[in-house]
Amino acid sequence: MSRKRIVVIGGTAAGPKAAARAKRLDENAEVTLLQKAPNLSMASCGYPYYVAGSVKERDMLLCTPAGVVRDPAFFAGAKGVAALTGTEVTAIDRAAHTVAWKRTATGEIGHLPYDKLIIATGSSPKVPPIPGRELAGVTTLATLEDADGLREKAKAMQGGKAVIVGGGLIGMETCEALTDAGMAVTVVEALPQILGFLDPELALLVENHAKAKGAAVLTGVGISEILGANGAVTGVRLADGRELPCSLVVLAIGVAPNVALAKAAGLELGTTGGIKTDAHMRTSDPDIYAAGDCVEVTNRLTGKPMLAPYGDLANLEGRVAGENAVLGDTATFPGTIGSGICKVFDFAAGATGLSERRAREAGIDVVTALNASPDIPGFMGAKPIVSKIVVEAATGRILGFACVGAGNVNRQVAEMAMAILGGLTVDDVSMADLPYAPPYSLAIDHAIATAHIVQNKLRGLMRGQSPLAVKDRLDNGEKPLLLDVRGPKEYEEMRLGLGEKLVPLGQLRKRLGELPEDKHAPIVAYCKVSMRGYEAQRVLEAAGYDNVTVMEGGLAAWPFAREK
Amino acid sequence: MSRKRIVVIGGTAAGPKAAARAKRLDENAEVTLLQKAPNLSMASCGYPYYVAGSVKERDMLLCTPAGVVRDPAFFAGAKGVAALTGTEVTAIDRAAHTVAWKRTATGEIGHLPYDKLIIATGSSPKVPPIPGRELAGVTTLATLEDADGLREKAKAMQGGKAVIVGGGLIGMETCEALTDAGMAVTVVEALPQILGFLDPELALLVENHAKAKGAAVLTGVGISEILGANGAVTGVRLADGRELPCSLVVLAIGVAPNVALAKAAGLELGTTGGIKTDAHMRTSDPDIYAAGDCVEVTNRLTGKPMLAPYGDLANLEGRVAGENAVLGDTATFPGTIGSGICKVFDFAAGATGLSERRAREAGIDVVTALNASPDIPGFMGAKPIVSKIVVEAATGRILGFACVGAGNVNRQVAEMAMAILGGLTVDDVSMADLPYAPPYSLAIDHAIATAHIVQNKLRGLMRGQSPLAVKDRLDNGEKPLLLDVRGPKEYEEMRLGLGEKLVPLGQLRKRLGELPEDKHAPIVAYCKVSMRGYEAQRVLEAAGYDNVTVMEGGLAAWPFAREK
Repeated sequence: MSRKRIVVIGGTAAGPKAAARAKRLDENAEVTLLQKAPNLSMASCGYPYYVAGSVKERDMLLCTPAGVVRDPAFFAGAKGVAALTGTEVTAIDRAAHTVAWKRTATGEIGHLPYDKLIIATGSSPKVPPIPGRELAGVTTLATLEDADGLREKAKAMQGGKAVIVGGGLIGMETCEALTDAGMAVTVVEALPQILGFLDPELALLVENHAKAKGAAVLTGVGISEILGANGAVTGVRLADGRELPCSLVVLAIGVAPNVALAKAAGLELGTTGGIKTDAHMRTSDPDIYAAGDCVEVTNRLTGKPMLAPYGDLANLEGRVAGENAVLGDTATFPGTIGSGICKVFDFAAGATGLSERRAREAGIDVVTALNASPDIPGFMGAKPIVSKIVVEAATGRILGFACVGAGNVNRQVAEMAMAILGGLTVDDVSMADLPYAPPYSLAIDHAIATAHIVQNKLRGLMRGQSPLAVKDRLDNGEKPLLLDVRGPKEYEEMRLGLGEKLVPLGQLRKRLGELPEDKHAPIVAYCKVSMRGYEAQRVLEAAGYDNVTVMEGGLAAWPFAREK
Repeated sequence: MSRKRIVVIGGTAAGPKAAARAKRLDENAEVTLLQKAPNLSMASCGYPYYVAGSVKERDMLLCTPAGVVRDPAFFAGAKGVAALTGTEVTAIDRAAHTVAWKRTATGEIGHLPYDKLIIATGSSPKVPPIPGRELAGVTTLATLEDADGLREKAKAMQGGKAVIVGGGLIGMETCEALTDAGMAVTVVEALPQILGFLDPELALLVENHAKAKGAAVLTGVGISEILGANGAVTGVRLADGRELPCSLVVLAIGVAPNVALAKAAGLELGTTGGIKTDAHMRTSDPDIYAAGDCVEVTNRLTGKPMLAPYGDLANLEGRVAGENAVLGDTATFPGTIGSGICKVFDFAAGATGLSERRAREAGIDVVTALNASPDIPGFMGAKPIVSKIVVEAATGRILGFACVGAGNVNRQVAEMAMAILGGLTVDDVSMADLPYAPPYSLAIDHAIATAHIVQNKLRGLMRGQSPLAVKDRLDNGEKPLLLDVRGPKEYEEMRLGLGEKLVPLGQLRKRLGELPEDKHAPIVAYCKVSMRGYEAQRVLEAAGYDNVTVMEGGLAAWPFAREK
């Protein structure tokens, strides 16, 4: 029996996973992994924590849980995989079933035959075509060498100024890392909001938190030039002409799939620019698979192709590619729903499924709701979280859920990812049986309560609007009665300060006479989180008012300046 | 239009939820809530933390998130509900549509008419029929008054000895509470293990942890008598004759539904002893609903009735009962899957769905797997967790998942509860798209990895056994080669100490000659968590060995004594 020759290009996440899985499923296979970079299996999602200094040792990013560095000797011994680092694949000869390689250090070249090839070439950070991008002090955070450099620079520049170009996931993680490392950080995001995977209501809350932690955040403005002197960065010029002095610029405007090899070999690319595969991670060449950041995948909710350059998916895709390379197409990668989470100072920001914006872009009619609450009971030391749910209007199926805050966002987003994967509806989640004890959740879990709110909206019991929509009404000159139904003490501590009227919910039924005589007068009811705001709406509607809106999430979700 | 009269019996969890929901859906309804106890809406799941002293103020157990005590004035003002405390319902006259009530303090009696009645009478702790149960110093932890008393006693008895009868959820929470409060605690559990919602593999790990924290845990032995002198507890006598001196005994052997009122009124009870309702929480009387600990509910996985006296379900059932009492049967409670979690010192222990034992009792053929891993990457400060998955053999559908450990058990159990509610299979979860970032999960989430393991078992790629099954083989005189495939340093730090052979995985392919010549010789491979153990099995099988077993969860899941 001839040994099957499996060649894997790329050694970060998808590649090693594919190689190891292939070998486990066929101990007789000859598995070779070619890695251009000097290291293997780098925990690249950990780079921001290495830059910040909270990850002390570089090797911790390269180790197995048992503390062994994943180097070629480890791969040879433990995995039975021949891993060659510093070895770039320069071409794929599909007809000859070979790859051409070149050792970076020596220039040595050679060819390697394959029966099945797995491409896991990853992605590269996008670099904006602006003057000054070649200056010393301009970097990305994509490779371990980038992380080394950024860690050193941050250490050397204590108290100095850094500008991060891009307020996405990596931009905001880097913002925290450099702030923690002692730099004064400004994030510049060309889009109107940071963290594009969130709808603006939630993104604004994270932005406020980052600002409260000392970071400057500028949105809706791009960078036109990186300024320098003597070859080193001295600042950036914004598109509106403003200049920000700084000695460090981190470019974090996203990544692009590395498809040059695949393209040169004539493999089909998708409309997104990633390598096109079928559900078995097989490319247009039946003997070539691809996995990780270099491929495009299917969004399971829209059915459309998308790029999803995330470490967790890379591992799953690699597992599928590795299996199929040796067993034939027994494994399937079903696609993504777009789950993600990131830490931004003391906040977590996570989302799964479609945001409202993306659902509407996909032409889906949706109903949404905001919910603000503690994560666990107050007597256990609760922290606040705010979430948004996106529901298909026609079916009640949950399409998206996002959550931000200082509390336990992680559980909420993870459980709702599974709910979306299971095709659950609002009614399903409204009666979900989840693990409850006071250290871990509310008696009615936050996400279940979010489902209750949107269920009340779908049934016409609650008429809600996000704080952004309410703000728009005020900005457009509409003058609804802003009805704060909290207690006087809460009102003293903090309030909108926009001419609102305070009538505590407990007195509302008796004090209806103080409200406008016109039952069609617009009223916006709210409280701290708008549970009481909703109850006020029910009372007012029973009293004949027909234009009452609840400001969803209440003051906890109001992302603009407030009094006191 | 005549106002609908809704009467609710019971004011802890289900009752207040039902009353408030009913009023929100019909502001014109007259909603009256009758509560025997002096307080309303007590956060009874928080009692252990109040006893321990970590919840400082009693009122924190009675407050809204905004800090308002939920007393009758609050219910009247904010909820529009007339709540009468210290008022016991003594009888239900179904024909007359009235309830008879009596004020505990004054003896005053009266009648209250209803159009719809909601019974939420809760449950009472079981008291074993043993001598001495009336002694001072013997208590349960079911009411706020119990919690007051226990908190006082624990404070007064600093350094004293307490015995907790029953090692279930409340027993173990109370064990932690009294230990934290400064007492020396012994838990006595008549069954062979604590925490009956877990299979023994995981329960043993929690037991070990409790012991490491200073608690004594005795399993498989009951209490025959509570010993006393001068009317006060001095100790307990176990069924095997041993005596444990103590000055405090907490009875925590479970609760029974309070059904006397319902039974006397001729309402149908279920086979479990709880009030029988349909999916709308309607009893055998069309004008009477029931919710909370007093009802029996349907297990969604077995289809069988069960008691599920949990605060989260009480709220959901109350929401359904409250809605249906005013709107007709528009809302449905779909039943439970048995999700729960509790904190035991630094461990969390959670489960959802069926344990292996319960699945087998229900006649379902299942395959299971254990998985031990860090909860997040090692470089982020990981803590270990161990989980068990229970899968229907015929379909691959996930029926149960349990997880224990010092790490983030909460997310794991919550997400898998949603997976079970969604009817997901092992294949589905093996490719789940969950939120990942290093502060929050592994790149391949723990539960996904657990699915990978059981998938490998289902496909015959991995042959695994739990540590308990391996221990049974050893105890039965079988002498498999115990093959530890970790590194020498790990081996020095800690090992089974049962005559095992160390061959690090990285050397295994070269050192096959050191293994038994007989390819049928039984071998049990393992490492710290048995990832490498599984890889060793694959290598050995490729070398012709046909009787290799992986010890699932490895040393991390081995619940017996180990060397060093």
